[in-house]
Amino acid sequence: MAFTTNATIASCGGKLLKLTHKASSTNCDMNLNLYLPPQAQSGKVPVLFYLSGLTCTGDNCAEKGFFQKPASEHGIAIVYPDTSPRGLKIEGEDDAYDFGSGAGFYVDATKEPWTKGYNMYSYIADELPKALFSSFPELDSSKVSITGHSMGGHGALTLFLRNPGMYKSCSAFAPIANPINCPWGQKAFNGYFGEDQSKWQEHDATELVKKWKGPLSLLIDVGTGDNFYKQGQLLPENFIAAAKEAGNDTDITLRMQPDYDHSYYFISSFADNHVSYAAKFLSSKHIL
Amino acid sequence: MAFTTNATIASCGGKLLKLTHKASSTNCDMNLNLYLPPQAQSGKVPVLFYLSGLTCTGDNCAEKGFFQKPASEHGIAIVYPDTSPRGLKIEGEDDAYDFGSGAGFYVDATKEPWTKGYNMYSYIADELPKALFSSFPELDSSKVSITGHSMGGHGALTLFLRNPGMYKSCSAFAPIANPINCPWGQKAFNGYFGEDQSKWQEHDATELVKKWKGPLSLLIDVGTGDNFYKQGQLLPENFIAAAKEAGNDTDITLRMQPDYDHSYYFISSFADNHVSYAAKFLSSKHIL
Repeated sequence: MAFTTNATIASCGGKLLKLTHKASSTNCDMNLNLYLPPQAQSGKVPVLFYLSGLTCTGDNCAEKGFFQKPASEHGIAIVYPDTSPRGLKIEGEDDAYDFGSGAGFYVDATKEPWTKGYNMYSYIADELPKALFSSFPELDSSKVSITGHSMGGHGALTLFLRNPGMYKSCSAFAPIANPINCPWGQKAFNGYFGEDQSKWQEHDATELVKKWKGPLSLLIDVGTGDNFYKQGQLLPENFIAAAKEAGNDTDITLRMQPDYDHSYYFISSFADNHVSYAAKFLSSKHIL
Repeated sequence: MAFTTNATIASCGGKLLKLTHKASSTNCDMNLNLYLPPQAQSGKVPVLFYLSGLTCTGDNCAEKGFFQKPASEHGIAIVYPDTSPRGLKIEGEDDAYDFGSGAGFYVDATKEPWTKGYNMYSYIADELPKALFSSFPELDSSKVSITGHSMGGHGALTLFLRNPGMYKSCSAFAPIANPINCPWGQKAFNGYFGEDQSKWQEHDATELVKKWKGPLSLLIDVGTGDNFYKQGQLLPENFIAAAKEAGNDTDITLRMQPDYDHSYYFISSFADNHVSYAAKFLSSKHIL
Protein backbone atom coordinates (compact mmCIF):
# COMPACT_ATOMS: atom_id res chain seq x y z
CA MET A 1 0.00 0.00 0.00
CA ALA A 2 3.00 2.33 0.29
CA PHE A 3 3.59 5.09 -2.20
CA THR A 4 6.77 5.95 -4.07
CA THR A 5 7.29 9.71 -4.35
CA ASN A 6 8.72 10.35 -7.81
CA ALA A 7 8.85 14.12 -7.44
CA THR A 8 7.93 16.88 -5.00
CA ILE A 9 7.09 20.14 -6.75
CA ALA A 10 6.49 23.49 -5.10
CA SER A 11 3.18 24.96 -6.25
CA CYS A 12 1.02 27.79 -4.90
CA GLY A 13 2.55 27.66 -1.43
CA GLY A 14 2.14 23.90 -1.05
CA LYS A 15 3.65 20.74 -2.52
CA LEU A 16 2.54 18.63 -5.44
CA LEU A 17 3.63 15.03 -4.95
CA LYS A 18 3.95 12.79 -8.00
CA LEU A 19 3.18 9.35 -6.57
CA THR A 20 3.11 5.72 -7.71
CA HIS A 21 1.68 2.74 -5.82
CA LYS A 22 0.88 -0.88 -6.50
CA ALA A 23 -2.91 -1.28 -6.63
CA SER A 24 -4.57 -4.66 -6.33
CA SER A 25 -7.97 -3.57 -7.64
CA THR A 26 -6.47 -2.42 -10.93
CA ASN A 27 -3.77 -5.07 -11.00
CA CYS A 28 -0.96 -2.66 -11.84
CA ASP A 29 1.10 0.27 -10.62
CA MET A 30 -0.99 3.43 -10.55
CA ASN A 31 0.30 6.99 -10.88
CA LEU A 32 -1.39 9.95 -9.24
CA ASN A 33 -0.73 13.48 -8.06
CA LEU A 34 -1.41 14.64 -4.52
CA TYR A 35 -1.44 18.33 -3.72
CA LEU A 36 -0.75 19.18 -0.09
CA PRO A 37 -1.60 22.78 0.80
CA PRO A 38 0.65 24.65 3.25
CA GLN A 39 -1.84 23.97 6.08
CA ALA A 40 -0.92 20.25 5.86
CA GLN A 41 2.39 21.07 7.54
CA SER A 42 0.68 21.93 10.79
CA GLY A 43 -2.41 19.73 10.97
CA LYS A 44 -4.95 17.56 9.22
CA VAL A 45 -6.54 18.91 6.03
CA PRO A 46 -9.73 17.90 4.19
CA VAL A 47 -9.41 16.14 0.82
CA LEU A 48 -11.00 16.81 -2.56
CA PHE A 49 -10.80 14.06 -5.18
CA TYR A 50 -10.72 15.31 -8.76
CA LEU A 51 -11.63 12.64 -11.34
CA SER A 52 -10.38 13.30 -14.87
CA GLY A 53 -12.02 12.75 -18.22
CA LEU A 54 -11.33 10.56 -21.24
CA THR A 55 -7.70 10.38 -22.43
CA CYS A 56 -6.40 12.13 -19.30
CA THR A 57 -4.06 11.10 -16.53
CA GLY A 58 -3.71 12.74 -13.14
CA ASP A 59 -1.33 15.23 -14.75
CA ASN A 60 -3.72 17.22 -16.93
CA CYS A 61 -5.62 18.92 -14.15
CA ALA A 62 -2.57 19.30 -11.91
CA GLU A 63 -0.94 21.29 -14.74
CA LYS A 64 -3.89 23.06 -16.33
CA GLY A 65 -6.90 22.97 -13.99
CA PHE A 66 -5.55 25.46 -11.49
CA PHE A 67 -7.07 23.93 -8.39
CA GLN A 68 -3.88 24.43 -6.37
CA LYS A 69 -4.25 28.14 -5.67
CA PRO A 70 -7.80 27.94 -4.24
CA ALA A 71 -6.84 24.69 -2.46
CA SER A 72 -4.09 26.60 -0.67
CA GLU A 73 -6.45 29.41 0.21
CA HIS A 74 -8.96 26.97 1.73
CA GLY A 75 -6.44 24.50 3.16
CA ILE A 76 -7.70 21.52 1.16
CA ALA A 77 -5.62 18.68 -0.31
CA ILE A 78 -6.39 17.63 -3.90
CA VAL A 79 -6.05 14.06 -5.21
CA TYR A 80 -5.66 13.68 -8.99
CA PRO A 81 -5.87 9.93 -9.84
CA ASP A 82 -5.35 8.29 -13.21
CA THR A 83 -8.37 7.32 -15.33
CA SER A 84 -7.72 3.59 -15.83
CA PRO A 85 -5.24 0.82 -15.24
CA ARG A 86 -2.29 0.89 -17.64
CA GLY A 87 -0.34 -1.78 -19.44
CA LEU A 88 -2.48 -4.82 -18.56
CA LYS A 89 -1.79 -6.25 -22.03
CA ILE A 90 -5.47 -6.85 -22.73
CA GLU A 91 -6.08 -7.06 -26.47
CA GLY A 92 -7.53 -3.80 -27.78
CA GLU A 93 -6.81 -1.95 -24.51
CA ASP A 94 -5.11 0.98 -26.26
CA ASP A 95 -7.12 1.00 -29.49
CA ALA A 96 -9.75 3.68 -28.73
CA TYR A 97 -9.71 6.99 -26.87
CA ASP A 98 -13.10 6.28 -25.30
CA PHE A 99 -12.66 2.69 -24.08
CA GLY A 100 -9.88 0.81 -22.29
CA SER A 101 -6.80 2.73 -21.17
CA GLY A 102 -7.59 6.34 -20.29
CA ALA A 103 -11.29 5.45 -20.20
CA GLY A 104 -12.00 3.34 -17.13
CA PHE A 105 -15.37 5.06 -16.57
CA TYR A 106 -15.14 4.56 -12.78
CA VAL A 107 -16.85 1.15 -12.86
CA ASP A 108 -15.82 -2.40 -11.91
CA ALA A 109 -15.97 -4.43 -15.11
CA THR A 110 -18.00 -7.65 -15.04
CA LYS A 111 -17.16 -8.72 -18.58
CA GLU A 112 -14.04 -10.58 -19.62
CA PRO A 113 -11.25 -9.72 -20.26
CA TRP A 114 -11.78 -6.30 -18.57
CA THR A 115 -12.36 -7.87 -15.14
CA LYS A 116 -8.60 -8.34 -15.03
CA GLY A 117 -8.12 -4.81 -13.67
CA TYR A 118 -10.69 -2.38 -15.01
CA ASN A 119 -12.04 -1.76 -11.52
CA MET A 120 -11.74 1.99 -11.23
CA TYR A 121 -14.87 2.15 -9.06
CA SER A 122 -13.26 0.10 -6.29
CA TYR A 123 -9.94 1.81 -6.80
CA ILE A 124 -11.32 5.34 -6.33
CA ALA A 125 -14.00 4.57 -3.74
CA ASP A 126 -11.98 2.19 -1.62
CA GLU A 127 -8.38 1.21 -2.33
CA LEU A 128 -6.89 4.61 -3.14
CA PRO A 129 -8.40 6.54 -0.21
CA LYS A 130 -7.44 3.75 2.23
CA ALA A 131 -3.88 3.79 0.93
CA LEU A 132 -3.68 7.58 1.10
CA PHE A 133 -5.10 7.86 4.62
CA SER A 134 -2.73 5.17 5.78
CA SER A 135 0.36 6.80 4.26
CA PHE A 136 -0.45 10.49 4.76
CA PRO A 137 -1.64 11.20 8.30
CA GLU A 138 -2.04 14.87 7.37
CA LEU A 139 -5.13 13.92 5.31
CA ASP A 140 -8.40 14.01 7.27
CA SER A 141 -10.31 10.84 6.33
CA SER A 142 -13.51 12.24 7.87
CA LYS A 143 -13.64 15.17 5.45
CA VAL A 144 -13.65 14.08 1.84
CA SER A 145 -15.36 15.64 -1.17
CA ILE A 146 -15.37 14.73 -4.85
CA THR A 147 -15.49 16.51 -8.19
CA GLY A 148 -14.58 15.68 -11.77
CA HIS A 149 -14.77 16.51 -15.46
CA SER A 150 -16.71 14.78 -18.26
CA MET A 151 -16.17 11.03 -17.66
CA GLY A 152 -14.80 12.15 -14.29
CA GLY A 153 -17.94 14.21 -13.67
CA HIS A 154 -19.89 10.99 -14.25
CA GLY A 155 -17.52 9.32 -11.80
CA ALA A 156 -17.95 12.03 -9.18
CA LEU A 157 -21.76 12.03 -9.42
CA THR A 158 -22.14 8.24 -9.37
CA LEU A 159 -19.65 7.63 -6.54
CA PHE A 160 -21.39 10.34 -4.52
CA LEU A 161 -24.91 9.06 -5.21
CA ARG A 162 -24.00 5.39 -4.62
CA ASN A 163 -22.33 6.09 -1.28
CA PRO A 164 -24.47 8.43 0.83
CA GLY A 165 -22.36 10.03 3.55
CA MET A 166 -19.01 9.01 2.11
CA TYR A 167 -18.40 12.44 0.54
CA LYS A 168 -19.27 15.75 2.17
CA SER A 169 -20.01 17.31 -1.21
CA CYS A 170 -19.96 16.71 -4.94
CA SER A 171 -19.60 18.95 -7.96
CA ALA A 172 -18.94 18.35 -11.64
CA PHE A 173 -17.66 20.02 -14.80
CA ALA A 174 -19.48 18.96 -17.97
CA PRO A 175 -20.38 15.51 -16.58
CA ILE A 176 -21.60 12.58 -18.66
CA ALA A 177 -24.80 12.74 -16.64
CA ASN A 178 -26.86 10.03 -18.30
CA PRO A 179 -24.38 7.54 -19.80
CA ILE A 180 -26.94 4.85 -20.60
CA ASN A 181 -28.44 7.27 -23.12
CA CYS A 182 -25.31 8.60 -24.84
CA PRO A 183 -22.83 7.01 -27.27
CA TRP A 184 -19.80 7.25 -24.93
CA GLY A 185 -21.65 5.62 -22.03
CA GLN A 186 -23.33 2.95 -24.14
CA LYS A 187 -20.01 1.89 -25.66
CA ALA A 188 -18.29 1.82 -22.27
CA PHE A 189 -21.05 0.02 -20.36
CA ASN A 190 -21.55 -2.51 -23.11
CA GLY A 191 -17.81 -3.15 -23.07
CA TYR A 192 -17.35 -3.35 -19.32
CA PHE A 193 -20.73 -4.92 -18.34
CA GLY A 194 -22.12 -6.53 -21.45
CA GLU A 195 -25.86 -6.38 -21.97
CA ASP A 196 -26.99 -6.55 -18.31
CA GLN A 197 -28.96 -3.30 -18.11
CA SER A 198 -29.27 -3.44 -14.33
CA LYS A 199 -25.51 -2.93 -14.05
CA TRP A 200 -25.76 0.00 -16.44
CA GLN A 201 -28.37 1.70 -14.29
CA GLU A 202 -26.28 1.28 -11.13
CA HIS A 203 -23.67 3.57 -12.68
CA ASP A 204 -25.92 6.15 -14.31
CA ALA A 205 -26.25 9.41 -12.35
CA THR A 206 -29.68 10.14 -13.83
CA GLU A 207 -30.99 6.76 -12.67
CA LEU A 208 -29.31 7.05 -9.28
CA VAL A 209 -30.64 10.52 -8.49
CA LYS A 210 -34.19 9.17 -8.72
CA LYS A 211 -33.54 6.97 -5.70
CA TRP A 212 -31.72 9.50 -3.51
CA LYS A 213 -33.24 10.06 -0.08
CA GLY A 214 -32.80 13.26 1.89
CA PRO A 215 -31.33 16.62 0.93
CA LEU A 216 -29.09 16.75 -2.14
CA SER A 217 -26.68 19.58 -2.92
CA LEU A 218 -24.70 19.65 -6.16
CA LEU A 219 -22.88 22.21 -8.29
CA ILE A 220 -22.63 21.44 -12.01
CA ASP A 221 -21.07 23.66 -14.69
CA VAL A 222 -21.54 23.01 -18.42
CA GLY A 223 -20.34 25.25 -21.28
CA THR A 224 -22.84 26.17 -23.97
CA GLY A 225 -20.01 26.02 -26.54
CA ASP A 226 -19.10 22.46 -25.52
CA ASN A 227 -19.28 20.30 -28.66
CA PHE A 228 -19.82 17.14 -26.63
CA TYR A 229 -22.76 18.79 -24.91
CA LYS A 230 -24.16 19.73 -28.30
CA GLN A 231 -23.66 16.16 -29.53
CA GLY A 232 -25.73 14.79 -26.66
CA GLN A 233 -22.89 13.08 -24.78
CA LEU A 234 -23.50 14.95 -21.51
CA LEU A 235 -27.31 15.29 -21.16
CA PRO A 236 -27.35 17.38 -17.97
CA GLU A 237 -31.00 18.24 -18.65
CA ASN A 238 -31.94 14.57 -18.24
CA PHE A 239 -30.25 14.54 -14.88
CA ILE A 240 -32.01 17.70 -13.71
CA ALA A 241 -35.38 16.43 -14.96
CA ALA A 242 -34.94 13.14 -13.09
CA ALA A 243 -33.91 14.96 -9.92
CA LYS A 244 -36.89 17.24 -10.25
CA GLU A 245 -39.29 14.35 -10.76
CA ALA A 246 -37.93 12.75 -7.61
CA GLY A 247 -38.18 16.02 -5.69
CA ASN A 248 -34.41 16.08 -5.26
CA ASP A 249 -33.55 19.17 -7.32
CA THR A 250 -34.06 22.03 -4.88
CA ASP A 251 -30.38 22.45 -4.05
CA ILE A 252 -28.86 21.38 -7.38
CA THR A 253 -27.23 24.27 -9.23
CA LEU A 254 -26.71 23.70 -12.95
CA ARG A 255 -24.89 26.66 -14.50
CA MET A 256 -24.84 26.82 -18.30
CA GLN A 257 -21.70 28.90 -18.89
CA PRO A 258 -21.99 30.95 -22.08
CA ASP A 259 -19.54 29.98 -24.87
CA TYR A 260 -17.29 27.80 -22.72
CA ASP A 261 -16.01 24.61 -24.34
CA HIS A 262 -15.03 21.19 -22.94
CA SER A 263 -11.35 22.01 -22.34
CA TYR A 264 -9.19 22.90 -19.37
CA TYR A 265 -9.73 26.56 -20.30
CA PHE A 266 -13.28 25.93 -19.06
CA ILE A 267 -12.24 23.97 -15.98
CA SER A 268 -9.57 26.47 -14.91
CA SER A 269 -12.06 29.32 -15.28
CA PHE A 270 -14.33 27.85 -12.61
CA ALA A 271 -11.98 25.70 -10.53
CA ASP A 272 -12.00 28.24 -7.71
CA ASN A 273 -15.80 28.10 -7.57
CA HIS A 274 -15.71 24.32 -7.18
CA VAL A 275 -13.00 24.38 -4.51
CA SER A 276 -14.94 27.06 -2.61
CA TYR A 277 -18.09 24.97 -2.94
CA ALA A 278 -16.35 21.92 -1.48
CA ALA A 279 -14.77 24.07 1.25
CA LYS A 280 -18.21 25.12 2.44
CA PHE A 281 -19.09 21.48 3.16
CA LEU A 282 -15.65 20.43 4.37
CA SER A 283 -15.52 23.14 7.00
CA SER A 284 -16.11 21.66 10.42
CA LYS A 285 -18.72 24.33 11.06
CA HIS A 286 -21.01 23.21 8.25
CA ILE A 287 -24.17 21.39 9.39
CA LEU A 288 -25.42 18.95 6.79
CA MET B 1 -0.54 42.57 -41.40
CA ALA B 2 -3.97 41.03 -40.86
CA PHE B 3 -4.50 38.14 -38.51
CA THR B 4 -6.34 34.90 -39.11
CA THR B 5 -8.36 33.83 -36.07
CA ASN B 6 -8.06 30.05 -35.86
CA ALA B 7 -10.09 29.70 -32.67
CA THR B 8 -11.87 31.82 -30.08
CA ILE B 9 -11.92 30.18 -26.66
CA ALA B 10 -13.85 31.35 -23.60
CA SER B 11 -11.52 31.66 -20.61
CA CYS B 12 -11.89 33.39 -17.25
CA GLY B 13 -14.64 35.70 -18.44
CA GLY B 14 -12.77 36.83 -21.56
CA LYS B 15 -11.71 35.35 -24.89
CA LEU B 16 -8.48 33.66 -25.89
CA LEU B 17 -7.85 34.14 -29.61
CA LYS B 18 -5.56 31.72 -31.40
CA LEU B 19 -4.06 33.87 -34.17
CA THR B 20 -1.76 33.48 -37.17
CA HIS B 21 -0.24 36.26 -39.26
CA LYS B 22 2.37 36.61 -41.95
CA ALA B 23 5.41 38.33 -40.47
CA SER B 24 8.08 39.92 -42.64
CA SER B 25 10.73 40.20 -39.90
CA THR B 26 10.66 36.45 -39.30
CA ASN B 27 9.95 35.55 -42.90
CA CYS B 28 7.14 33.12 -42.07
CA ASP B 29 3.65 32.75 -40.65
CA MET B 30 3.69 33.28 -36.90
CA ASN B 31 1.23 31.83 -34.39
CA LEU B 32 0.32 33.57 -31.16
CA ASN B 33 -2.39 33.75 -28.54
CA LEU B 34 -4.13 36.95 -27.55
CA TYR B 35 -6.24 37.07 -24.41
CA LEU B 36 -8.88 39.77 -24.37
CA PRO B 37 -10.36 40.36 -20.90
CA PRO B 38 -14.08 41.16 -20.62
CA GLN B 39 -13.30 44.88 -20.29
CA ALA B 40 -12.13 44.86 -23.94
CA GLN B 41 -15.77 44.64 -25.00
CA SER B 42 -16.48 48.13 -23.76
CA GLY B 43 -13.25 50.09 -24.18
CA LYS B 44 -9.50 50.10 -24.67
CA VAL B 45 -7.42 47.85 -22.41
CA PRO B 46 -3.69 47.89 -21.57
CA VAL B 47 -1.49 45.10 -22.92
CA LEU B 48 1.00 42.79 -21.22
CA PHE B 49 3.42 40.86 -23.45
CA TYR B 50 4.50 37.49 -22.04
CA LEU B 51 7.67 36.10 -23.67
CA SER B 52 8.13 32.35 -23.35
CA GLY B 53 11.23 30.27 -22.68
CA LEU B 54 13.19 27.67 -24.63
CA THR B 55 11.14 24.98 -26.43
CA CYS B 56 7.86 26.81 -25.84
CA THR B 57 5.28 28.29 -28.15
CA GLY B 58 2.61 30.82 -27.23
CA ASP B 59 0.46 27.93 -26.06
CA ASN B 60 2.37 26.83 -22.96
CA CYS B 61 1.63 29.85 -20.83
CA ALA B 62 -1.89 30.32 -22.20
CA GLU B 63 -2.66 26.78 -20.97
CA LYS B 64 -0.53 26.51 -17.85
CA GLY B 65 0.61 29.95 -16.70
CA PHE B 66 -2.76 31.11 -15.43
CA PHE B 67 -2.41 34.77 -16.35
CA GLN B 68 -5.99 34.93 -17.66
CA LYS B 69 -7.78 35.12 -14.32
CA PRO B 70 -5.76 38.06 -12.92
CA ALA B 71 -5.81 39.66 -16.39
CA SER B 72 -9.61 39.63 -16.23
CA GLU B 73 -9.58 41.06 -12.74
CA HIS B 74 -7.33 43.94 -13.80
CA GLY B 75 -8.72 44.41 -17.32
CA ILE B 76 -5.43 43.73 -19.10
CA ALA B 77 -4.93 41.93 -22.43
CA ILE B 78 -2.14 39.34 -22.62
CA VAL B 79 -0.09 38.60 -25.74
CA TYR B 80 1.62 35.19 -25.88
CA PRO B 81 3.94 35.15 -28.95
CA ASP B 82 5.94 32.23 -30.31
CA THR B 83 9.65 31.95 -29.48
CA SER B 84 11.16 31.81 -32.98
CA PRO B 85 10.34 31.60 -36.66
CA ARG B 86 9.25 28.12 -37.77
CA GLY B 87 9.94 26.08 -40.87
CA LEU B 88 12.51 28.32 -42.56
CA LYS B 89 14.37 25.21 -43.79
CA ILE B 90 17.70 26.42 -42.45
CA GLU B 91 20.05 23.49 -41.95
CA GLY B 92 20.22 22.51 -38.28
CA GLU B 93 17.25 24.71 -37.36
CA ASP B 94 15.47 21.92 -35.47
CA ASP B 95 18.51 20.06 -34.14
CA ALA B 96 18.84 21.53 -30.63
CA TYR B 97 16.35 22.60 -27.96
CA ASP B 98 18.45 25.66 -27.11
CA PHE B 99 19.21 27.08 -30.55
CA GLY B 100 17.16 27.64 -33.70
CA SER B 101 13.45 26.87 -33.64
CA GLY B 102 11.92 27.44 -30.20
CA ALA B 103 15.03 29.37 -29.19
CA GLY B 104 15.08 32.72 -31.01
CA PHE B 105 16.50 34.52 -27.94
CA TYR B 106 14.73 37.77 -28.85
CA VAL B 107 17.63 39.04 -30.99
CA ASP B 108 18.07 39.95 -34.66
CA ALA B 109 20.67 37.56 -36.04
CA THR B 110 23.63 39.08 -37.85
CA LYS B 111 25.23 35.79 -38.84
CA GLU B 112 24.29 33.70 -41.88
CA PRO B 113 22.13 31.72 -42.40
CA TRP B 114 20.10 32.89 -39.37
CA THR B 115 19.62 36.39 -40.78
CA LYS B 116 17.00 34.82 -43.02
CA GLY B 117 14.33 35.21 -40.31
CA TYR B 118 15.76 34.86 -36.82
CA ASN B 119 14.78 38.43 -35.99
CA MET B 120 12.66 37.94 -32.88
CA TYR B 121 13.84 41.27 -31.45
CA SER B 122 12.29 43.24 -34.29
CA TYR B 123 9.28 40.98 -34.37
CA ILE B 124 8.43 41.48 -30.67
CA ALA B 125 9.52 45.10 -30.30
CA ASP B 126 8.11 46.39 -33.55
CA GLU B 127 6.24 44.24 -36.09
CA LEU B 128 3.94 42.30 -33.78
CA PRO B 129 2.74 45.25 -31.66
CA LYS B 130 2.15 47.37 -34.78
CA ALA B 131 0.13 44.56 -36.34
CA LEU B 132 -1.87 44.01 -33.15
CA PHE B 133 -2.66 47.69 -32.58
CA SER B 134 -3.71 48.05 -36.18
CA SER B 135 -6.03 45.01 -36.11
CA PHE B 136 -7.38 45.23 -32.55
CA PRO B 137 -8.53 48.77 -31.72
CA GLU B 138 -9.51 47.56 -28.24
CA LEU B 139 -5.79 47.36 -27.36
CA ASP B 140 -4.35 50.56 -25.90
CA SER B 141 -1.01 51.16 -27.66
CA SER B 142 -0.04 53.76 -25.05
CA LYS B 143 -0.14 51.24 -22.18
CA VAL B 144 2.13 48.27 -22.76
CA SER B 145 4.12 46.20 -20.27
CA ILE B 146 6.32 43.16 -20.69
CA THR B 147 7.20 40.02 -18.76
CA GLY B 148 8.63 36.62 -19.56
CA HIS B 149 10.17 33.37 -18.38
CA SER B 150 13.76 32.12 -18.68
CA MET B 151 14.83 32.97 -22.25
CA GLY B 152 11.66 35.09 -22.28
CA GLY B 153 12.74 36.76 -19.03
CA HIS B 154 15.97 37.69 -20.82
CA GLY B 155 13.80 38.97 -23.68
CA ALA B 156 11.60 41.03 -21.37
CA LEU B 157 14.52 42.60 -19.50
CA THR B 158 16.54 43.40 -22.62
CA LEU B 159 13.63 44.81 -24.63
CA PHE B 160 12.67 46.94 -21.63
CA LEU B 161 16.21 48.19 -20.99
CA ARG B 162 16.97 48.88 -24.67
CA ASN B 163 13.79 50.90 -25.20
CA PRO B 164 13.27 53.37 -22.35
CA GLY B 165 9.65 54.49 -22.24
CA MET B 166 8.32 51.82 -24.60
CA TYR B 167 7.04 49.63 -21.76
CA LYS B 168 5.34 50.92 -18.63
CA SER B 169 6.80 48.08 -16.57
CA CYS B 170 8.85 44.91 -16.76
CA SER B 171 9.01 41.76 -14.66
CA ALA B 172 10.56 38.34 -15.15
CA PHE B 173 10.36 34.74 -14.01
CA ALA B 174 13.74 32.98 -13.72
CA PRO B 175 15.34 35.17 -16.43
CA ILE B 176 18.61 34.39 -18.18
CA ALA B 177 19.93 37.61 -16.70
CA ASN B 178 23.52 37.56 -17.89
CA PRO B 179 23.57 35.49 -21.10
CA ILE B 180 27.12 36.44 -22.12
CA ASN B 181 28.32 34.56 -19.03
CA CYS B 182 26.19 31.38 -19.22
CA PRO B 183 26.26 28.38 -21.57
CA TRP B 184 22.78 28.97 -23.05
CA GLY B 185 23.53 32.59 -23.86
CA GLN B 186 27.02 31.98 -25.16
CA LYS B 187 25.81 29.28 -27.54
CA ALA B 188 22.92 31.42 -28.78
CA PHE B 189 24.87 34.66 -29.18
CA ASN B 190 27.75 32.90 -30.88
CA GLY B 191 25.26 31.29 -33.24
CA TYR B 192 23.21 34.37 -34.01
CA PHE B 193 25.96 37.04 -33.84
CA GLY B 194 29.26 35.26 -34.25
CA GLU B 195 32.20 36.52 -32.26
CA ASP B 196 31.37 40.24 -32.23
CA GLN B 197 31.22 40.84 -28.47
CA SER B 198 29.68 44.29 -28.84
CA LYS B 199 26.51 42.70 -30.24
CA TRP B 200 26.50 40.26 -27.32
CA GLN B 201 26.59 43.08 -24.80
CA GLU B 202 23.72 44.91 -26.48
CA HIS B 203 21.46 41.97 -25.59
CA ASP B 204 22.71 41.21 -22.11
CA ALA B 205 20.50 42.54 -19.30
CA THR B 206 23.40 42.75 -16.86
CA GLU B 207 25.40 44.91 -19.30
CA LEU B 208 22.37 47.03 -20.19
CA VAL B 209 21.36 47.77 -16.61
CA LYS B 210 24.73 49.45 -16.03
CA LYS B 211 23.83 52.13 -18.58
CA TRP B 212 20.24 52.79 -17.47
CA LYS B 213 19.45 56.40 -16.59
CA GLY B 214 16.68 57.41 -14.21
CA PRO B 215 14.47 55.34 -11.92
CA LEU B 216 14.25 51.62 -12.58
CA SER B 217 11.51 49.35 -11.21
CA LEU B 218 11.57 45.59 -11.78
CA LEU B 219 10.05 42.48 -10.21
CA ILE B 220 12.03 39.25 -10.64
CA ASP B 221 11.14 35.84 -9.20
CA VAL B 222 13.57 32.92 -9.16
CA GLY B 223 13.03 29.53 -7.50
CA THR B 224 15.74 28.21 -5.22
CA GLY B 225 14.95 24.69 -6.47
CA ASP B 226 15.45 25.70 -10.12
CA ASN B 227 18.11 23.41 -11.59
CA PHE B 228 19.00 25.92 -14.29
CA TYR B 229 19.57 28.52 -11.58
CA LYS B 230 21.82 26.06 -9.75
CA GLN B 231 23.71 25.33 -12.97
CA GLY B 232 24.49 29.01 -13.47
CA GLN B 233 22.29 29.59 -16.51
CA LEU B 234 20.30 32.43 -14.92
CA LEU B 235 22.77 34.45 -12.82
CA PRO B 236 20.30 36.91 -11.30
CA GLU B 237 22.93 37.88 -8.71
CA ASN B 238 25.15 39.26 -11.48
CA PHE B 239 22.27 41.41 -12.67
CA ILE B 240 21.55 42.74 -9.19
CA ALA B 241 25.24 43.41 -8.54
CA ALA B 242 25.56 45.36 -11.79
CA ALA B 243 22.40 47.36 -11.04
CA LYS B 244 23.72 48.11 -7.57
CA GLU B 245 27.08 49.25 -8.88
CA ALA B 246 25.29 51.60 -11.26
CA GLY B 247 23.04 52.87 -8.46
CA ASN B 248 19.99 51.47 -10.28
CA ASP B 249 18.92 48.80 -7.79
CA THR B 250 16.77 50.69 -5.31
CA ASP B 251 13.44 49.64 -6.81
CA ILE B 252 14.43 46.20 -8.13
CA THR B 253 12.78 43.38 -6.23
CA LEU B 254 14.45 39.97 -6.60
CA ARG B 255 12.47 37.31 -4.76
CA MET B 256 14.19 33.96 -4.25
CA GLN B 257 11.18 31.66 -3.91
CA PRO B 258 11.96 28.68 -1.66
CA ASP B 259 11.95 25.28 -3.40
CA TYR B 260 10.26 26.44 -6.62
CA ASP B 261 11.58 24.94 -9.86
CA HIS B 262 11.79 26.25 -13.43
CA SER B 263 8.38 24.91 -14.56
CA TYR B 264 4.95 26.35 -15.13
CA TYR B 265 4.08 25.21 -11.59
CA PHE B 266 6.41 28.04 -10.55
CA ILE B 267 5.06 30.56 -13.06
CA SER B 268 1.40 29.84 -12.28
CA SER B 269 2.09 30.23 -8.55
CA PHE B 270 3.18 33.85 -9.02
CA ALA B 271 1.43 34.88 -12.24
CA ASP B 272 -1.11 36.95 -10.31
CA ASN B 273 1.71 38.88 -8.59
CA HIS B 274 3.23 39.77 -11.96
CA VAL B 275 -0.09 40.82 -13.50
CA SER B 276 -0.83 42.95 -10.41
CA TYR B 277 2.64 44.45 -10.67
CA ALA B 278 2.06 45.40 -14.31
CA ALA B 279 -1.42 46.69 -13.49
CA LYS B 280 0.05 49.17 -11.02
CA PHE B 281 2.06 50.80 -13.83
CA LEU B 282 -0.57 50.41 -16.54
CA SER B 283 -3.21 52.18 -14.50
CA SER B 284 -3.74 55.68 -15.83
CA LYS B 285 -3.36 57.05 -12.34
CA HIS B 286 0.19 55.83 -11.92
CA ILE B 287 2.83 58.58 -12.08
CA LEU B 288 6.18 57.29 -13.33
